[in-house]
Amino acid sequence: MLYILVRILDFQSHIHLIYTLIHKRAIKMDVTKPTSCWWVVLVALVIALNLATLCNGGVTSKFVRKVEKSIDMHLESDVFSVPTGYNAPQQVHITQGDHEGKAVIVSWVTMHGPGSNTVEYWIDGNYQKLKANGRVTTYKFYNYTSGFIHHCTISNLKYNTKYHYQVGMGHSVRSFWFMTPPEVGPDVPYTFGLLGDLGQTYDSNKTLTHYELNPTKGQAVLFVGDLSYADNYPDHDNARWDTWARFAERSMAYQPWIWTAGNHEIDFAPEIGETKPFKPFTHRYRTPYKSSGSSSPLWYSIKRASAHIIVLSSYSAYGKYTPQNQWIEEELPRVDRNKTPWLIVLMHSPWYNSYNYHYMEGETMRVMYEPLFVQYKVDMVFSGHVHAYERSERVSNVAYNVINGICTPVSDQSAPIYITIGDGGNIEGLANNMSEPQPKYSAYRETSFGHATLDIKNRTHAYYAWHRNQDGYAVEADSLWVFNRYFHPVDESTSS
Amino acid sequence: MLYILVRILDFQSHIHLIYTLIHKRAIKMDVTKPTSCWWVVLVALVIALNLATLCNGGVTSKFVRKVEKSIDMHLESDVFSVPTGYNAPQQVHITQGDHEGKAVIVSWVTMHGPGSNTVEYWIDGNYQKLKANGRVTTYKFYNYTSGFIHHCTISNLKYNTKYHYQVGMGHSVRSFWFMTPPEVGPDVPYTFGLLGDLGQTYDSNKTLTHYELNPTKGQAVLFVGDLSYADNYPDHDNARWDTWARFAERSMAYQPWIWTAGNHEIDFAPEIGETKPFKPFTHRYRTPYKSSGSSSPLWYSIKRASAHIIVLSSYSAYGKYTPQNQWIEEELPRVDRNKTPWLIVLMHSPWYNSYNYHYMEGETMRVMYEPLFVQYKVDMVFSGHVHAYERSERVSNVAYNVINGICTPVSDQSAPIYITIGDGGNIEGLANNMSEPQPKYSAYRETSFGHATLDIKNRTHAYYAWHRNQDGYAVEADSLWVFNRYFHPVDESTSS
Repeated sequence: MLYILVRILDFQSHIHLIYTLIHKRAIKMDVTKPTSCWWVVLVALVIALNLATLCNGGVTSKFVRKVEKSIDMHLESDVFSVPTGYNAPQQVHITQGDHEGKAVIVSWVTMHGPGSNTVEYWIDGNYQKLKANGRVTTYKFYNYTSGFIHHCTISNLKYNTKYHYQVGMGHSVRSFWFMTPPEVGPDVPYTFGLLGDLGQTYDSNKTLTHYELNPTKGQAVLFVGDLSYADNYPDHDNARWDTWARFAERSMAYQPWIWTAGNHEIDFAPEIGETKPFKPFTHRYRTPYKSSGSSSPLWYSIKRASAHIIVLSSYSAYGKYTPQNQWIEEELPRVDRNKTPWLIVLMHSPWYNSYNYHYMEGETMRVMYEPLFVQYKVDMVFSGHVHAYERSERVSNVAYNVINGICTPVSDQSAPIYITIGDGGNIEGLANNMSEPQPKYSAYRETSFGHATLDIKNRTHAYYAWHRNQDGYAVEADSLWVFNRYFHPVDESTSS
Repeated sequence: MLYILVRILDFQSHIHLIYTLIHKRAIKMDVTKPTSCWWVVLVALVIALNLATLCNGGVTSKFVRKVEKSIDMHLESDVFSVPTGYNAPQQVHITQGDHEGKAVIVSWVTMHGPGSNTVEYWIDGNYQKLKANGRVTTYKFYNYTSGFIHHCTISNLKYNTKYHYQVGMGHSVRSFWFMTPPEVGPDVPYTFGLLGDLGQTYDSNKTLTHYELNPTKGQAVLFVGDLSYADNYPDHDNARWDTWARFAERSMAYQPWIWTAGNHEIDFAPEIGETKPFKPFTHRYRTPYKSSGSSSPLWYSIKRASAHIIVLSSYSAYGKYTPQNQWIEEELPRVDRNKTPWLIVLMHSPWYNSYNYHYMEGETMRVMYEPLFVQYKVDMVFSGHVHAYERSERVSNVAYNVINGICTPVSDQSAPIYITIGDGGNIEGLANNMSEPQPKYSAYRETSFGHATLDIKNRTHAYYAWHRNQDGYAVEADSLWVFNRYFHPVDESTSS
């Protein structure tokens, strides 16, 4: 009950903020309009909190949510519109381009011809333009031929600086901007957004809008996989990879999205002769894998501010002796917590999941890597895949030795908190069937679309919050002060 | 104790056979000479049987074996000799070339030039020669450039027929022969040899010789991975792939070896710029993967006589949604036990292993596929990797659901027998450190080099035997009548 009381107090402190922000930005399209009377929000939240059930484990929220199937936005929706001008760059997106945050990879697509490979960029307020040249690639997938996909790495950027950049030629030039991160250091604050399983439905758009308008302003997105869901269309219609990137451009052209490959990135379709896994994804989305000694774009690491982010691939080989295994075994000892206290892992398929969707799919990777995560005191693991939200307690299940019969998750202060954040709003709809009673490892779970933020304050504290799409932009439906496992390994569990 | 009594009776029936066979063939090179007095064999076996310990599980043999490190044969050894004649074909080997056994893939290497891609072949006693044309490939690995590697598929062969074949040109032509298998059918007898982790040491040569001279004549080899151990040489010296294939040619040119990829086939060496897993292996050894609907040469199936053999890759992706996972989920329902009653799986990394080597490395794949193996009543699973011999009881461990705490292997008559046969004799030496006490799932284990045979009699019975290198060729150190899980699912467990 303490938890609920704290939550109500928490809530009151947010009421004013909600009121202030609730109409801050007009929604571009048919996003459900936020409620304009804050007493409705109050009533809804009180109902939600009162209905929250304390089970064997933590909280299973009873928040009343939309349960209809998600619907893809129409191709004519403005979010998919093609920029004006002949061969204008579209689907512009950026990601970190090196290991420490001094480089950015700028990517874009031109549809009618290769056009220019050059990115022009300059520091805000300084009109001396610099240039970088990229490369262009194309691919075919069954009866689809891609546009001209450009990738250009801009290096030697200054930290903590606003850069403008331009791509395209003549009348079709388009301009964007981004902020470089502060220099890597143990107490550097930084705010990550967390999105997963986004897709391109009306709900996807709500999720992205809520992320954009969240007053806890995310500076970079940790994306836990499943971008476009193009593979749900006939013959994996790759035109839906294009529409998705036009939709998400409004965020990913302005701040780096850190990519994790999900199952919808595999695009394995032997029935139409497409047997090379990850072909569309790897052509369209680049990662700075070489700078972390990886041999594959599907697993790698970056350092950003005070965080060391490790991205793993749930759908590549990870058995002993495999490239991914060799890399993670070498990578974890390289993490210097004195420089990057926050050790965060992204992977698509969750290890601790109590929904009856994809239940236990993560076990095969968990039995491989969980002992390492505990040994190296990973702070948090973010996954997607299950279309709902869940936060675990700090638990581990590493005592099993085949014959001892010990195989139950137990509280472990060296273990990460596992977050499932696959609630981006894609076409497959919500996962609303949960295992009952709620297992002890599960601290909070709710079948709602949303996103989260991780607001790192210093080497010891970070504030984590999950936001559901039905709330006003500032409302935190689940939140937690997270204590660093290396510098401040104090128990922050929330279950009774 | 019943088991030991049966074994002694068994043994007596073999004494005459041993005596008859013991000098049947002169060993080509420095293989340890078999003992000429059969009473020595008798004494050794009685000692071995008496020393066998019955633990919690089954038998841990105390057979006194060579414990020195294995030593690679010298490059000047006759087993490695290059055939005479300019550009003469070398490293000749065959494998099954289709799904049902009417095709053979003939492979060979020419060192000085591509030479001829043609295989000439004819039925024994019929001198009408037929021709098939193959393809040539080469690869580079760091500072090594391969010879010209030829692969030629001969199709539309008659069943159960002896074929002669020739490769090479002019004075360098070389001739070999093979027997095609009988037509697939439920009661067709067939004898498989089982070899793994062979390498190219003096012990490897003993293992191969023992297989060749085993009176239970194997007609095809199920090879459970780890061929040459070239990766143990500096810079993965790929010349050792060549020497290995010259050594093994004396068997694999005459009967098909069915290939499984082991960890020593990965050849992942980022430190020398080699980051494409399985490059040497896949260039040198072909598998008929397309005929079983697979998209990768590393997992596939064949039917041969009354057996359906499934080969899996321990070192590729096998998580849900991956190509290998999709294939196995489609493959198992396709198995028609009324045509091929014997369902056999090969993979390199064992699931049930009680040695303190590679312990639990197989868990990550076990938790994925064990429920399928039990559901589809796989008869036997053969693995390598651990350099010793072990046979399991029929056990499964599939009740675990994360929260129920049930995770102990239990007797299960729908489960396979798991055999570890990684005792081919490679340079890494024997695994002689076992977990104690012997787990219940382990029926018999022994740290000796050797090989096994699986002699399928009909749809209900097969006779399985393991042969250690220290014995005479006919001696069975561990043996078992195996009862088919589909037609005769009777308990054949041997533990007390």
